[in-house]
Amino acid sequence: MRSLKKAIKEAEKNKIALGHFNISNLEQLKGIAHAAMRLKVPVVIGVSEGERDFIGIHHVRDLIDSYNKEHGNPSADGEGFWLFLNADHTHSLENAAVAADLDFDEVLFDGEKLSFEENIRQTKLAADLVKRGFRFWKKEILLEGELGYIGSASEIREGIPEGAAIKPEDFTKPEEAARFVKETGVDLLAPAVGNIHGMYANTPDPALDIERIRAIKKSVGIPLVLHGASGNTDGDILAAIDAGISMVHISTELRAAWRQGLEKDLLEKPNEVAPYKLTPDAISKIEEIVERKLRLFNKFQ
Amino acid sequence: MRSLKKAIKEAEKNKIALGHFNISNLEQLKGIAHAAMRLKVPVVIGVSEGERDFIGIHHVRDLIDSYNKEHGNPSADGEGFWLFLNADHTHSLENAAVAADLDFDEVLFDGEKLSFEENIRQTKLAADLVKRGFRFWKKEILLEGELGYIGSASEIREGIPEGAAIKPEDFTKPEEAARFVKETGVDLLAPAVGNIHGMYANTPDPALDIERIRAIKKSVGIPLVLHGASGNTDGDILAAIDAGISMVHISTELRAAWRQGLEKDLLEKPNEVAPYKLTPDAISKIEEIVERKLRLFNKFQ
Repeated sequence: MRSLKKAIKEAEKNKIALGHFNISNLEQLKGIAHAAMRLKVPVVIGVSEGERDFIGIHHVRDLIDSYNKEHGNPSADGEGFWLFLNADHTHSLENAAVAADLDFDEVLFDGEKLSFEENIRQTKLAADLVKRGFRFWKKEILLEGELGYIGSASEIREGIPEGAAIKPEDFTKPEEAARFVKETGVDLLAPAVGNIHGMYANTPDPALDIERIRAIKKSVGIPLVLHGASGNTDGDILAAIDAGISMVHISTELRAAWRQGLEKDLLEKPNEVAPYKLTPDAISKIEEIVERKLRLFNKFQ
Repeated sequence: MRSLKKAIKEAEKNKIALGHFNISNLEQLKGIAHAAMRLKVPVVIGVSEGERDFIGIHHVRDLIDSYNKEHGNPSADGEGFWLFLNADHTHSLENAAVAADLDFDEVLFDGEKLSFEENIRQTKLAADLVKRGFRFWKKEILLEGELGYIGSASEIREGIPEGAAIKPEDFTKPEEAARFVKETGVDLLAPAVGNIHGMYANTPDPALDIERIRAIKKSVGIPLVLHGASGNTDGDILAAIDAGISMVHISTELRAAWRQGLEKDLLEKPNEVAPYKLTPDAISKIEEIVERKLRLFNKFQ
């Protein structure tokens, strides 16, 4: 079976990044999977607590297995298509345990809104639970921690979410990151480095602080994850990967493409009612974006 | 494991009908399954060739298994929720074999557009393949045949589809039905008795020929399936069940509800992009219709 740990270590070594994309329906999954199949690369499918409740956590697990069984290359040393599954933005130990019990590859424990000390305390409990406390998970599950608030919703917005870190003095500090990683035992760290969840309606996202990424990477020594990369420029994302990012999250761009494609099909086919004839445009728009992002993250271009 | 043969024999004995609903996305499945769970009844999920290509035939199989594993009562003598899976409107032996190999509960071999003799010949081949030719299917798979053209698309339309049987002289004849069933060995028969696939934009569907249903049932002795029941009145459907119908197909009404619910959510939430926040209305509209239909088919009201 494929191992996310191995995949991310490979990415780290090769200075590329794994793509992480969220889903809450079949059309998103289809668009993402088809792009990854075409490029023969692994990707991480993320489901937030809202997304996994909506699909049903067992059903999303079974769907991902179904895609891997049918289209994946399961070789542990393998290249090629594979879907890893991440319990994105998990806010409770209970939900972390449920995801681990269902053989998710990764749990992101989201303590970004907590105080530094409380974030360390709770993330450590999650890491102990997922990584060491239970011996009965079928595989090694990675625990990701978050340090620094970057907003929580993948949406189109007019302004910066309240409390989000947008000034360099609010960004994740390398020395705090080092302590956080050491004390919690996380495998992956998501820092606040100018990235914000969601996208702006009319302007590009703020620039990423590439030097800060480099400094954090140097001080923690584990793979870094860039959240909220919808809306960041290709140049910023590439520089972030070179500076130490090994996984990039894209969600809002795919959601916006889904809505746009769906509205186009609904408008063009006023009398059509069959869902499978009204969603192809949404799927192909998603597929197109994912392919473009994966080419960027994997430095295929 | 639950047996569709047993479920339909029970329905036949109790003069009720199984509900058959088509899907091509998660939202439809969710609405249908939730209604059936609430009423604790089995239902048949249908996927046409277009629908199974769209979802992926392996993925729809795995999704149905996922629902049954999580929510179903697998007892062979059981009452309660269960999803059976039908390869609806299958046009080739190859596709029939693929569905049987994936453990579908039923294959509808669609020869309705063929001449009577050619329909017998091809349906017999399908029945031999699915029911007797292969010994390696994991369970008994039912083969349904169609006799009489009732149109093929679940859509909203302005007029009757060309060639469809709408006059009593074009309806399925009891003596032909008897020969068809005897020579093909089908388990279930879908006759043309005034039913038409799809729904009319502005007028109710034509009335069903209840006496014809009764005569066909008497002459064939196997359970009958009513296709294209979207748009038929409750009174007509109940009378059809009393006359010998043991399974009722509803598709267009659910598709129309999906589109209507989706458009409502899109209109009311112009800035929302998350699919799981834009589809709840579609799901609840589907759930509402399915619950109403299942109460009718099961004579709960």
